[in-house]
Amino acid sequence: MSAPQGWEEIRAEVLRRIDRRDWAPGAIIPTEAELAAEFGCARATVNRALRELAAQGVLERRRKAGTRVATLPVRKATLDIPVTRLEVEGRGQHYDFRLLEASETVPPVPVSSRLGLAPDATLWHLRTLHFADGQPFLYEDRWLNPAVLPDGLPEDMAEVSINEWLVKTVAYTYGDIAFSAANARADDAAHLGVEPGAALFITERTTWAGEAPVTAVRLAYAPGYRLHTVL
Amino acid sequence: MSAPQGWEEIRAEVLRRIDRRDWAPGAIIPTEAELAAEFGCARATVNRALRELAAQGVLERRRKAGTRVATLPVRKATLDIPVTRLEVEGRGQHYDFRLLEASETVPPVPVSSRLGLAPDATLWHLRTLHFADGQPFLYEDRWLNPAVLPDGLPEDMAEVSINEWLVKTVAYTYGDIAFSAANARADDAAHLGVEPGAALFITERTTWAGEAPVTAVRLAYAPGYRLHTVL
Repeated sequence: MSAPQGWEEIRAEVLRRIDRRDWAPGAIIPTEAELAAEFGCARATVNRALRELAAQGVLERRRKAGTRVATLPVRKATLDIPVTRLEVEGRGQHYDFRLLEASETVPPVPVSSRLGLAPDATLWHLRTLHFADGQPFLYEDRWLNPAVLPDGLPEDMAEVSINEWLVKTVAYTYGDIAFSAANARADDAAHLGVEPGAALFITERTTWAGEAPVTAVRLAYAPGYRLHTVL
Repeated sequence: MSAPQGWEEIRAEVLRRIDRRDWAPGAIIPTEAELAAEFGCARATVNRALRELAAQGVLERRRKAGTRVATLPVRKATLDIPVTRLEVEGRGQHYDFRLLEASETVPPVPVSSRLGLAPDATLWHLRTLHFADGQPFLYEDRWLNPAVLPDGLPEDMAEVSINEWLVKTVAYTYGDIAFSAANARADDAAHLGVEPGAALFITERTTWAGEAPVTAVRLAYAPGYRLHTVL
């Protein structure tokens, strides 16, 4: 190949060789130093290209054993999880929301259990309907642990949605996220303006800040929602 | 802090400082060299920790402007997309599949259009039902471009599912993937053994090898399926 310009070109050339079976599935490929010499580029450039391919599941890298072409690659896809306002605005639509409920109450046992809290612990229950161009976009049913917010809820809850306020207020959280499909419950149907039983895309998140449970939230999207990414 | 052991400890310490607002949202944090000196570790270790945090959306790195704490982080989640056999076996279940159809035919226009092919192009139509512990797990409806497989389909299509065979045969593909929810169509319901209208989790993928379209596939999962990852 002619002298490559950057790591993207190295990556493309490596993919061509894998695709042509110059480097077969399971085979060990040349070292970074050998590839850098062959391509006439810095070893760091080769390293960047191989790291990207390993992150995508195309290559398998082991410190001592070298770099192999994956035999049965597990493809990886990255999803962006923005706050809802930015998700709606990113579609070029006008964002708005309405707070439906903000109460302090004892949650159903599955909620306290997911958060690792005692069954009689009191949580904030916050339900929000998010709109895109004035149409219901997302119905958010959230439980929030008051212990993580010593200053309480924001003064004006009509200003910023609880979703966005939390992202700004609790700087970093760990969590898990699950995507599924469900037939619309009565409350989903009423708020989203659809027939009960309509198939809805559901996101459930549970997040933690250090050892402390923060929030458990269920997001029910209006029909037609697609979560999209590239492979 | 006491001398850290590795990049994970550096990452944890950076998160603690962000969480305590020592480093506020939007603030520029010290340089890698400054942090390496403070922590008594190699600059490469700091670099690894900050790269991970940038990939998670916690930090924003700009070559000239330095590294900032993200003001409104877009969280990123990584999904593993394994072949169906490994997905089922990863759940500790027995995998099996049945090929329902393998024909050559002209697809509906939306399919040829998604693949960028002429509306009268003939494709392979491959429909497969995947089982977990003998129960329907996933109904796969796939269109495949014969031009990318000069040697044709595998001899024994009962041996390896087309899903797994393609991953092994077409070494690397680009593509896009979308997740959504849909009420079960008549064919979904018949194959998965559910009522028409049941809410199903749907994955649609379109993939390319270089310039050539490879496949467009729709996966309909049996009710109860959850796609799970961590944040």
